[in-house]
Amino acid sequence: MRAANMGLLLRHLRGHGGRSRAQLASETGLSKATTSSLIADLAARGLVREGELVRGGSVGRPGQTVTLDGANVTGIGLELSVDYAALTAVSLAGTVVRESVVPLDVAHLALDVVFDRAAAYLTRAVDSLREAGAHVVGITVAPPGIIDYDTGTLRFAPNLGWRGVPLVAELSERLGPEAPPIRLENDAKLAAVAEFDRVAPQGIRDLLYLSGEVGIGAGIVADGRLVRGYSGFSGEVGHLPLDPTLTPCNCGRRGCWETIVGLTAFLRLAADPGDSLHDPKRALEDRLLTLADRARAGDERTLVALATVTERLALGLGILVDVLNPKMIVLGGYYAFFGEFILPPVQAALAERRLDEGSAIVLATSELGLISTARGGALLALEDVFTDPTVVAGAD
Amino acid sequence: MRAANMGLLLRHLRGHGGRSRAQLASETGLSKATTSSLIADLAARGLVREGELVRGGSVGRPGQTVTLDGANVTGIGLELSVDYAALTAVSLAGTVVRESVVPLDVAHLALDVVFDRAAAYLTRAVDSLREAGAHVVGITVAPPGIIDYDTGTLRFAPNLGWRGVPLVAELSERLGPEAPPIRLENDAKLAAVAEFDRVAPQGIRDLLYLSGEVGIGAGIVADGRLVRGYSGFSGEVGHLPLDPTLTPCNCGRRGCWETIVGLTAFLRLAADPGDSLHDPKRALEDRLLTLADRARAGDERTLVALATVTERLALGLGILVDVLNPKMIVLGGYYAFFGEFILPPVQAALAERRLDEGSAIVLATSELGLISTARGGALLALEDVFTDPTVVAGAD
Repeated sequence: MRAANMGLLLRHLRGHGGRSRAQLASETGLSKATTSSLIADLAARGLVREGELVRGGSVGRPGQTVTLDGANVTGIGLELSVDYAALTAVSLAGTVVRESVVPLDVAHLALDVVFDRAAAYLTRAVDSLREAGAHVVGITVAPPGIIDYDTGTLRFAPNLGWRGVPLVAELSERLGPEAPPIRLENDAKLAAVAEFDRVAPQGIRDLLYLSGEVGIGAGIVADGRLVRGYSGFSGEVGHLPLDPTLTPCNCGRRGCWETIVGLTAFLRLAADPGDSLHDPKRALEDRLLTLADRARAGDERTLVALATVTERLALGLGILVDVLNPKMIVLGGYYAFFGEFILPPVQAALAERRLDEGSAIVLATSELGLISTARGGALLALEDVFTDPTVVAGAD
Repeated sequence: MRAANMGLLLRHLRGHGGRSRAQLASETGLSKATTSSLIADLAARGLVREGELVRGGSVGRPGQTVTLDGANVTGIGLELSVDYAALTAVSLAGTVVRESVVPLDVAHLALDVVFDRAAAYLTRAVDSLREAGAHVVGITVAPPGIIDYDTGTLRFAPNLGWRGVPLVAELSERLGPEAPPIRLENDAKLAAVAEFDRVAPQGIRDLLYLSGEVGIGAGIVADGRLVRGYSGFSGEVGHLPLDPTLTPCNCGRRGCWETIVGLTAFLRLAADPGDSLHDPKRALEDRLLTLADRARAGDERTLVALATVTERLALGLGILVDVLNPKMIVLGGYYAFFGEFILPPVQAALAERRLDEGSAIVLATSELGLISTARGGALLALEDVFTDPTVVAGAD
C-alpha cells in the first residue's frame, strides 16, 4: 500500500508539475502525515526533491515545492533491428543521458555473436551509467520479430528466419546477476511510446505510429495509454491482406501489406537488382538519403516508386483510421526520409474517406528516426518506478 | 476534491467488493476520518450501505461492511435503430430494472413523429422509475448514424438519409426541464460496453463487438476501457474497403465491408426480391428466425448466402484481430441468429492467420441480442456516478 501511494504521488507530480506537500495531500486525498512521510521516502530515493518556498494558500506557513527528480534514475532501451542496434538511456527527470546507433548485421551473424555484441553494448552502457552514480531500473529490448512475452523469447523473426530465440535468458546470462531486469517489447509499440511522450504536452492523447522497415508494425496509443492487446499482439498490421497481386510474404502468406509498402518492396521498385541501393554493406541511411536526393532531382523511377508505395500506404492507413480514430499518425522508418513526397498525398487520401468531418488528422514523419524504439524502451523501463517507486533503493 | 474521493471509494467498492471503513481507508490511502465522513455522505445518497459486522483484523473493534448500494439509482439507455427502439434501465447495483423493445419504423416516419414517439417512450420510463423512488442520473441515446458529440446532433444516418438532426435538443425539449441529462453515443460502442460488463467477471479485458445490422460498426474495449478514438469515431469498420466487386454503399463510396456483410447484403443473397423476407412490415426477428429455420433444414440458397457472408466476415475480422488483438469477439445484430453457421468457419479462419500462437480467441454471438446497445447506454449513464457521486442528491 505504501509503495502504491508513493507511486500515486510520483504520477501526480509527473502529470501536474511541482507543488507543496499540503497541495499534494489535498489533491491526492492522502493525509498530510502520510504525504510527508512518503515524500521523505521518495526524496531519500532521489525521486523527488524539495525546492524553493511557495505559499500554498493565503494563510498558514509557506511550504516547499516538491518536484519530480530522478536525475540519477535511468531506464535503458535497446533495439535490435535487422541491420543496426540502437541504445538509449533516459532519466526519470526526462533527460536522454545516452543515445547511440551502431551498425549490426544481425541478419548475417551467428546468433551467439549477436548475443555477445548486444550484451557488450548493454554492459558498457550500464557500467558507465553506474559509474556516474545512476540507478538503472530496467532494460527493454526490442527484437526484430514476434515476442513470447511469458518466456522472454523471440518466437519468430520472419525477416531473419529465426525461431524460438531465448533472448532474455541469453542476455541476462551474459550481463550477470547484478544487471537490471530485462524485458522484451515490440519495436513499433516502443516507438509509439516515444513519439507519444514527445507530443503529449501538445494535448494529443490518441496516436498511431507506423514503423517502415522491412516489416511494418503499428503502435497504438488510445486516450494516453498504450494498447497492447490481450497477449501483446496489437498493431500486427504488416500482414493485413492489402496486396491484390498476392506477393508472397516472409510470413508464409500472400498479399500482406508489408510486401507492397515495406522497405524491401520500396527498394525493389526504386532500383534494379545491380544498383548499389540494394547493397546491405552500404549503410541504410546512406542509401535512403541517395534515394531522397534522386526524388528531389525529379528522377522518374524513384518518384513512381514513392507514388506506388504511398497509394498503398494510404489504403492501409485509411483502414487504421476507421478502426482507431487517432488524432495523430507518425510515420517512422524509411518513410521519415520521404515526408515531402508521402505526407501530402496520404493526407489528401485520408481527408477524402473520413467520416468524421471534424478536425483533421495530424500526419507527420518521425523526428526521432532510428532511435524512437530504443527511446520508448527506456521510457517503458522507467514506468516501473511510477508503479512501485521502491524498485529504486533509498540512500544508505 | 471531496467528490473525486467519493468516486474513488465507490469505484474501489465496485472493483473489490464490500469491506470495512478501516479497510477502505487503508486500501485507498484516505485518512480514517475522511473515509468515515465520505462513506456517511455516500450512504445518505443511497450509493452505499453498511451491513453486518466484520472484524477487520485480529484486534480492535469489529467494523460494519460497506457495500455498493444504488438500488434506487438508475441510468437509461435508448437505441433508435432503423426499424425498432429499445430501452433499458439499469440500477447502480447492477440490476436491470426495465427493458423493452418496440417496433418503430424510423426509416419511413417523419422526423417529428420519431422524436415524439422516442420522447414518449423515455418519459414513460422516467416517470415510472421516479414513481418507484428511483433517481435517474442520465439517458444515453444511440442514434442510427454518425454523431456530432459536441452538439448532440445526428450528423449523418447513411441508411436513413438524415443529415444534421439535433437529437439531444429535440428530445430534451420534449422531455422538459426536469428530465435527466441526455447524451448520444454510438450503438456499437454501447453494445461493447454491455457485452464487456457481462464477461469482465471471467477475466476478459480486451473485447471487440461487431454489430450486424444494415450498417456494421465495431465497439472496442482494450484493457477494460472503451476505446473511443480522439473524436469518438473509432470502430467505423463498416466502410473498410473489403469488397473487391465495389458494390455502391450508402456512404457514397464503393466496396465498403457492410455492402457485403451487412443485413441488406445478406437478405439479398438469401432471398429473391418478392420474398416476404424483404418485407419491412414483417418483424425483423421473425424474418431472421425463418432464415435460421431454412438454414437448419439445409436450404441451399440460405446456406450459400451464409457462407458468402461468413467468408467476408472472417476477412474483416482478421484485420481487426491483427490491429487490436482482442481476447474475445462478440458478434451482434443478425449474426446472433446464425451462430452455429458463422462461428466455426470464422474461428477456423482466424486461427489460420493468427501470428500469436498462444491461446485462442473466444468467439461468440451476443446473448444480449437487440437489447445490448440500450443496456450499454444505461451502464454508460451510470458511469457519471462513479466519477462524481454528488450527481445523486442526498436524502432530505
